This record gives sequence, structure tokens and C-alpha cells, in this order.
Amino acid sequence: MTEAERNEFFMRAAIEQAMKAYDIGEVPVGAVVVKDDEIVGTGFNRRETGKNALYHAELAAINEACGKLHGWRLWQCDLYVTLEPCPMCTGAIINARIPRVVFGAYDYKAGSCASVTDLFKFPYNHKAEVTGGVLEEECGELLSRFFKELRMKNKK
Amino acid sequence: MTEAERNEFFMRAAIEQAMKAYDIGEVPVGAVVVKDDEIVGTGFNRRETGKNALYHAELAAINEACGKLHGWRLWQCDLYVTLEPCPMCTGAIINARIPRVVFGAYDYKAGSCASVTDLFKFPYNHKAEVTGGVLEEECGELLSRFFKELRMKNKK
Repeated sequence: MTEAERNEFFMRAAIEQAMKAYDIGEVPVGAVVVKDDEIVGTGFNRRETGKNALYHAELAAINEACGKLHGWRLWQCDLYVTLEPCPMCTGAIINARIPRVVFGAYDYKAGSCASVTDLFKFPYNHKAEVTGGVLEEECGELLSRFFKELRMKNKK
Repeated sequence: MTEAERNEFFMRAAIEQAMKAYDIGEVPVGAVVVKDDEIVGTGFNRRETGKNALYHAELAAINEACGKLHGWRLWQCDLYVTLEPCPMCTGAIINARIPRVVFGAYDYKAGSCASVTDLFKFPYNHKAEVTGGVLEEECGELLSRFFKELRMKNKK
């Protein structure tokens, strides 16, 4: 696989996770953590149903990966997520020493790898290489559809 | 209680949490979430023993508070923590809509409420009022003692 093919392959796995959020009425964001081309952590947004501010896709995936790999340093792992990470999740990527982040849609309200700010440009003790816009249209379309349907429901 | 007395009172509760981390050989950082002068969440750093990058004191305390209050919005809560929050934990404060943060020692390497940057100055959808340096000496001394003892152990 080329890098572009790998990015699309694992972003599709992240989209599958996002669909799980969509199916339970949550803002559809999904993430996977990958080590040596194997998925070692998955997660999807469950903030409303889980009633918890920490239940973002990335944190769930990082949590699972730490458990599976028996350590807090995910320095051999890549993170794929359908939406640009927020400050909490970007901070978790720094704390877990994840060297590579691939995201789908840009988040102009909370995105902290490019949009609102790029936390990897600050002098923390870790920086990740970031690729944004992978399958951007599909990732964004899923979010647009969700919010459109939500507005329709709220109008009723 | 005056605000200064309240800050010291709950910072002492956060220091008690930090002592739990110290006692198991973890970097001593502790946190409490408080609603109407009642502690609704506690946490201490367990990154090494828990083998997880997310096991910071603040995340543990926020997680417990969300569970206890059955919701992700902690807008009536204050967070007290012995060390200035890192980007992940500051992001979690934003996500949980916590309006007030009180911390003890400044963290010049990762602190994201004042030191490395102040994330509340960015255009995210939430800002918190921050008071730093409450019982700073005690909070800092506990950390200094921990690292000094660690260096002594490593020399042996």
C-alpha cells in the first residue's frame, strides 16, 4: 500500500466507527489507532448517551490502545479520525506520544491541529506529523447529514 | 468562607489526592471537582501504574463528576488541581464547560492555562476563569520532593 492508500483504508475504518455514533444519534465522529497496519484501538463519540464530556472518539481509541499495548506511550502508532481533534484530544495525542495523526474534515470551531490553532507548534515535549483532509468529503458529508436531520427533528 | 479560604480548603483536598499518587510512586498531582461546596469528583495521577496516557488527575475527577451528576456539562462546578493543567486536561475543562479553575504550582513545560499557552484565550466555545498559585509552595514542594527521591533511587 502507498501512504495515500493506507490513509484512505484506515480512514474508512474510522468512518465505520463514526457510523456507530450516527446510529445512536450522536455527532458522528470515529477514530482508530493503528500499529504496524493493525487496528489496536477504536472509538466513537458517545458524549450524549454516555453523559460524559470525555467520551470523544479519539480518547476512547487511545484508551483501548493503551490497554491493548500495556503502556501509555503509543510512539509506534498512528491515529486516524474523521474530524480534526479538539484541544482535549490533541493534548491526549501529545500525552500518548503518537507521532502521526490523519484526520478527515476540518473543524473550524474546535480543531486544534490546524483550524483554531495548531498545538503541535507550541513548545510541548512532543509533536505529531499531521495530515488533514483525507476523505474529507465523506467525513464532512456524514456530519452535515446528521446536523440536517437533527434540525428537521427539532422543527417537528 | 471567603473565596481565598475556599480556594485553600479545596486545594488541601486536591493535595490529599496528590498524596495518593505520591504513595504509589506516581508524579504527585491531585484534583477535585466541587459543586455547591461539595466534592463531586476526585482524581490523582496514575499514568505509570495504570499504563495509560489519559490517567491524569483532572480527567479522573471530571469523569467521576460527570458520572455523579449524570451529565457532561459541569457548568456549576469548580476544578481544583495541584498542578497547572496540561493541554489535554485544559481541553477537557473546555469540553465539560467548567467555569472556574484553581491550580497550585505552575507547569512551565506543559501548563496550558498560563505557562506554555493559555487555551482559554483562543476562540473555543468556552472559557474558564483561572486562579493560579494557590498553596503553590506546598504543591510544588511535593513535586520537588518526589523528583528528588526519584533521582536518588535512580543513582543507586
